[in-house]
Amino acid sequence: MSSVFLDHIFMPRSVSVVGASPENFATFAGFTIIALIDAGFPAIYPVNPKYTEAFGMPCYPNVSSIPGPVDHVIVCIPAEMALDVLDDCAGKGVKSVHFFTAGFSESGEKERVELENTMLYKARAAGFRIIGPNCTGLFVPKARLTCATRLPMEPGPVAFISQSGGHAQDLPLHAGPRGVRFSKVVSYGNALDIDECELFEYFTDDPETGIIAAYIEGVRDGERFKKVLKRASQKKPVVIYKGGITETGLRSARSHTASMTSSVQVFQALCCQENAIQVNDVQEMIDVLVALNFAVPYPQGTGVAVIGQGGGPSVQASDQLEAAGLSLPSIPPGISAELRQFLPMAGAIFTNPLDATNLVFPDAIGETLRVLGKVTEINMMMYHMGFHPVSRWGEGRFSNDFFLKPMGETLHNAMVEIKKPVILALGPASDRVGMEELLTVQQAFVSDGLPVFHSIEKAALAMARVEGWHRRKNAGIS
Amino acid sequence: MSSVFLDHIFMPRSVSVVGASPENFATFAGFTIIALIDAGFPAIYPVNPKYTEAFGMPCYPNVSSIPGPVDHVIVCIPAEMALDVLDDCAGKGVKSVHFFTAGFSESGEKERVELENTMLYKARAAGFRIIGPNCTGLFVPKARLTCATRLPMEPGPVAFISQSGGHAQDLPLHAGPRGVRFSKVVSYGNALDIDECELFEYFTDDPETGIIAAYIEGVRDGERFKKVLKRASQKKPVVIYKGGITETGLRSARSHTASMTSSVQVFQALCCQENAIQVNDVQEMIDVLVALNFAVPYPQGTGVAVIGQGGGPSVQASDQLEAAGLSLPSIPPGISAELRQFLPMAGAIFTNPLDATNLVFPDAIGETLRVLGKVTEINMMMYHMGFHPVSRWGEGRFSNDFFLKPMGETLHNAMVEIKKPVILALGPASDRVGMEELLTVQQAFVSDGLPVFHSIEKAALAMARVEGWHRRKNAGIS
Repeated sequence: MSSVFLDHIFMPRSVSVVGASPENFATFAGFTIIALIDAGFPAIYPVNPKYTEAFGMPCYPNVSSIPGPVDHVIVCIPAEMALDVLDDCAGKGVKSVHFFTAGFSESGEKERVELENTMLYKARAAGFRIIGPNCTGLFVPKARLTCATRLPMEPGPVAFISQSGGHAQDLPLHAGPRGVRFSKVVSYGNALDIDECELFEYFTDDPETGIIAAYIEGVRDGERFKKVLKRASQKKPVVIYKGGITETGLRSARSHTASMTSSVQVFQALCCQENAIQVNDVQEMIDVLVALNFAVPYPQGTGVAVIGQGGGPSVQASDQLEAAGLSLPSIPPGISAELRQFLPMAGAIFTNPLDATNLVFPDAIGETLRVLGKVTEINMMMYHMGFHPVSRWGEGRFSNDFFLKPMGETLHNAMVEIKKPVILALGPASDRVGMEELLTVQQAFVSDGLPVFHSIEKAALAMARVEGWHRRKNAGIS
Repeated sequence: MSSVFLDHIFMPRSVSVVGASPENFATFAGFTIIALIDAGFPAIYPVNPKYTEAFGMPCYPNVSSIPGPVDHVIVCIPAEMALDVLDDCAGKGVKSVHFFTAGFSESGEKERVELENTMLYKARAAGFRIIGPNCTGLFVPKARLTCATRLPMEPGPVAFISQSGGHAQDLPLHAGPRGVRFSKVVSYGNALDIDECELFEYFTDDPETGIIAAYIEGVRDGERFKKVLKRASQKKPVVIYKGGITETGLRSARSHTASMTSSVQVFQALCCQENAIQVNDVQEMIDVLVALNFAVPYPQGTGVAVIGQGGGPSVQASDQLEAAGLSLPSIPPGISAELRQFLPMAGAIFTNPLDATNLVFPDAIGETLRVLGKVTEINMMMYHMGFHPVSRWGEGRFSNDFFLKPMGETLHNAMVEIKKPVILALGPASDRVGMEELLTVQQAFVSDGLPVFHSIEKAALAMARVEGWHRRKNAGIS
């Protein structure tokens, strides 16, 4: 199957949800329909022989009886009825069928493996594609097609391929407020028909995709994967989270998606060889995506200048940046003298990390970034808000126009002027006051195109990975 | 100095804040006064010769002119005036003076080191104690004495000793909503008079303290520290976060608190030898404190049963638990058969992690915990909400009485009945809907006495540390 067919799959004009029950909203079918309505998807057709109406729309007994064309079908009924649904779909001339339904080959039972084979045969015969089974399917902002509410609906450059439906929803849900936007997200589950290799091929050539992220538990065809990964990585940054890297994790992955996980070491070595950025969980993947999107231009070395208030956070930043493989160059005497002209001595620490009492004011921060930005050994700047209102004071004092607007502009302008990334590490929030403040501050900085991380350590890890990827790329490794 | 004197310091009846300016609330003095008023502290005296009124209270020109006794003085004026303030305090007969003021020995300047020596001499001569300088001082809920707003004001078992003022505020701020409560928190900065050794001694014998946590950048007297740590650790769990473990971190710690940080390896070996639980940052310390407070009775081995919904989170849990040093015992056939009586086969994974479609309902979860709890190899249970409303759906559907009340009761009862800790890993939240839901759900579970963590990985790390500490303790190591 050539992957050009996937173009149609990512732009369906109409969707049918099989198994939608108006009596039970708390199902994937119910949530999907609500999410599609929220997203403004134009043509949704619930299918359930028990009802004539569902979710305020006409409900049909089967796909064939829907008036007008149906491009995409989402199946949420038991595995036992899979073949009947596929016959129904074949009659209608659909382009793709997504099975949310689980209980196929991943059960490890022989007849379920055979059932999957028959399903694939039916799809090939009728000329449509199958997504899954055992997955949450598609999220395509441009097509207003979504599998969950609250996902970021503006299109953007990131394609995410995920063997976990949970991760396929969590990644855009949590990356959205950090400014990350998506071209297409595909949860492909058991990979019966459409698999990670075809998706990698497609996204490598997809003009709407600038960055490819993937959660993979296992690949069927290692040789093919190697080829598609090489080509993808040569054209675009690739970020990979491999699930099942320990013995227990491997066992778990087999039960999850029937993945024939090959040697973890071989997989990791392959990623390394092709310069794919490897991460250890969804949150780390989000951090790397934030760095790839907003920490621009990418740093030309490991040197970080850390500025902000608080001795504890400064010590922590030092430890965590060094542990992540980054370095904190010393501030040259001339630069230090320049800083002393506008930073007060009292309570200040004129080293790197730099800690001075007025490093909460936009003007002082902007000037400090510009002065430090001149140092060749400093390749990126981190402003940490450890000892800062966001986590500590949180009374709305810093989420107002007086502070937030000039602060965002200052940081953005400094980044543009010094041509080195300016990174923000915002302290975590734990209560309502702090969380409200964090979201307000984050939203403002994200609108200004700044990379926002939720701890110094996370910022350090993500920047170290992106710096390493960029360095190897410049050295000709993929 | 015998540490019994600290009793008075922790129970001041009146506090004077020197340097309080009604024109500038955004100073430590201003924030402290507002926090003390909020906390209901009975007698607060602002001192500033420029004003006769501040913060709606009479303002005095100096400490001596305050009518009635003053127990504790908080100094927020420049270092140059330190000796004058101390003379003023000596005349008044105060018990303790806390210097928020920085710019002393940590500046590395000779005259500032000498200034500190003179300060100590004056304090000894007048018979009062100095906290700091260069620190945020005391937080003692029982005395209504606080250095910041929004800290948990109910007294509890945790004492926290911190060489960073930022960490001294952040730890209770973020640990509060997780249910952790404090006896006394002391930010001791440059440790001119009261140091970590005296504080360890005091908290070892303090009947109000059950757990001792400490953020330490360096100790002056290694031999003495070794002795006090040994005695502390034999009586109570001790959790230590050492700041400055890398070369850059050490350099930073020296500039921060003038700490003569000895060999990191020696310090870490000492902690290990005395069975102190070591953590890498404030967030990890909070996680360990949550585990020590609520993951009871402490696990008798590394075996974890993981239950919840979602294949991706299950794989992630497997990888992260194994990486943390915990294990996932297989579910014996008899137990598996028992589970199948009430858990549906379809879409389920009957391994460990256990993933079944009805593992969102309190009844099914409670029964599952009770059945798995019988397995000897399983020492603790983790319920993860990776694929769960808190992070994903967040529409208030699960924060209501229908779900939340029986859920909390079920988990609590299971923990009591099976006599093994039941741990909750709640997914993170990123938008307003998710954060509101997370806080509501967390608050309910915390009220039920449950240990709540914000990711599977964090739960795994904390439980591995507490399990290891408990095992070594039972083996007679401290």
